[in-house]
Amino acid sequence: MRPLAGRLDLCSINTATLGHSTPIDHVIDDVARAGFGGICPWRRDLMDVDVVKTARHIRDAGLKVSGYCRSTYLPAATEAGLRASVEDNRRAIDQAATLGAQCFVMVVGSLPAGSRDLALARAQVTEGVEKLIERARSAGVRLALEPLHPMYAGDRSCLNTIDQALKLAETLEPDPEPAPTLGVALDVYHVWWDPNLAAAVSRAGTSRRLFAFHVCDWLVPTRDLLMDRGMMGDGVIDIPHIRRLVEATGYEGFVEVEIFSETNWWRKDASVTLATCAERLQTVC
Amino acid sequence: MRPLAGRLDLCSINTATLGHSTPIDHVIDDVARAGFGGICPWRRDLMDVDVVKTARHIRDAGLKVSGYCRSTYLPAATEAGLRASVEDNRRAIDQAATLGAQCFVMVVGSLPAGSRDLALARAQVTEGVEKLIERARSAGVRLALEPLHPMYAGDRSCLNTIDQALKLAETLEPDPEPAPTLGVALDVYHVWWDPNLAAAVSRAGTSRRLFAFHVCDWLVPTRDLLMDRGMMGDGVIDIPHIRRLVEATGYEGFVEVEIFSETNWWRKDASVTLATCAERLQTVC
Repeated sequence: MRPLAGRLDLCSINTATLGHSTPIDHVIDDVARAGFGGICPWRRDLMDVDVVKTARHIRDAGLKVSGYCRSTYLPAATEAGLRASVEDNRRAIDQAATLGAQCFVMVVGSLPAGSRDLALARAQVTEGVEKLIERARSAGVRLALEPLHPMYAGDRSCLNTIDQALKLAETLEPDPEPAPTLGVALDVYHVWWDPNLAAAVSRAGTSRRLFAFHVCDWLVPTRDLLMDRGMMGDGVIDIPHIRRLVEATGYEGFVEVEIFSETNWWRKDASVTLATCAERLQTVC
Repeated sequence: MRPLAGRLDLCSINTATLGHSTPIDHVIDDVARAGFGGICPWRRDLMDVDVVKTARHIRDAGLKVSGYCRSTYLPAATEAGLRASVEDNRRAIDQAATLGAQCFVMVVGSLPAGSRDLALARAQVTEGVEKLIERARSAGVRLALEPLHPMYAGDRSCLNTIDQALKLAETLEPDPEPAPTLGVALDVYHVWWDPNLAAAVSRAGTSRRLFAFHVCDWLVPTRDLLMDRGMMGDGVIDIPHIRRLVEATGYEGFVEVEIFSETNWWRKDASVTLATCAERLQTVC
């Protein structure tokens, strides 16, 4: 496993960690100044800016783009809704290409309002992702399917395990040459509980489909399903164990911090959060 | 699938649904009066009563005991802690026998305070369950391992999927004749998201290890990880779909309602909650 002490160049900050409260240009400067090697912006950070200029700013700041977050949910109550979502995701893939992002992170969505048909939502995800592959390939953007924790199966993602995401990738892209366009983003928060974790990570790595690795921590107790992620070291996830599994497959990408924490980290000054991320990455990850 | 309309005799009430706020003798009478065929008491309901008398009261009220909740958590920080937990669970198994419970529901626990070693917790669960089998067999009590939703992996259960529970049962009891002592309790709340659900339920049923079937619903949004379960029909779980899978395996046991709902159902009068359970069981399950 790569030592991270003194190697913040291997580490990236997902902008959600800072709560989307300051303009992206400030965030880029803050992240670069704190010594990180990468940044993963959210689409919402780029709503009112020129993406070409932002891409240049990121490059000029010496940062790589570890990923671009995130897809519009695919399942919809109508065929037109699904088509609109596919179109919107194509535009996001183009932005990811402009940014030079190492992947486009796909949080796929789940049950449309009023539906209980999880199988249908999953079928719509398959259909939607299939319609995005060609655009992703021609744009040179890898699609990182992110399995979300099963507690999000009702509203945010019907893709809930690494195995399930890999199966989707392998079904839609059985013979990926020269390299896969479909892979997975692995966030310890979503997968740490999985009894099949070691085998699933190994399968993802050996099929060259491990596109991103995110860290944060699971707090006990967790007080909110969405907004109570912990700083690495403050929870119960054995992060080094999982990073060891990931890097044993040959993964050489970024270790990216993504923390949703409305009542704690998002209320702190960005410099405090970034310094804490830097310290924890080098000591407990 | 069995029609439930007019068949409350096939349905059971887990006493947690009523919030443990009234003495067990009242609860027994309430449940019987509402027309249900079964009850599943919690150990905490029986703290200050004579279990033999309670068992007689339940029988006299015309109720079966669909299960007895629940085990003391097995993983512990010390060997002595694990031994003490095993001893305590043996006493509970004896109570389950006295009650004539169709199974003893095992919520196995997870990380002891300060631990991040999920593999060790899982190994302790294996060790602890193994030490309970003989007592269970001689008492004639089936042990229903209950996989809990992965959002409880940090504190309540390191057993998180049906497959994982079945694997444990099959490992500890590979050749169960005349019938398995180790099986699973399947609660729709914990397993509805599982991409492998249909195969796992089928495997549980055909190996005769499906000992209990619990219903409630998953609310969107869910406001609390423990205490915000929904009444059947108020959430997004396709309960009939899951019951169909369960009964297709030959399951003929109770459909048991278990709802933890501190801020909603637990605040209502027991008669209201029981009437709503009865109506929903007959119409949306």
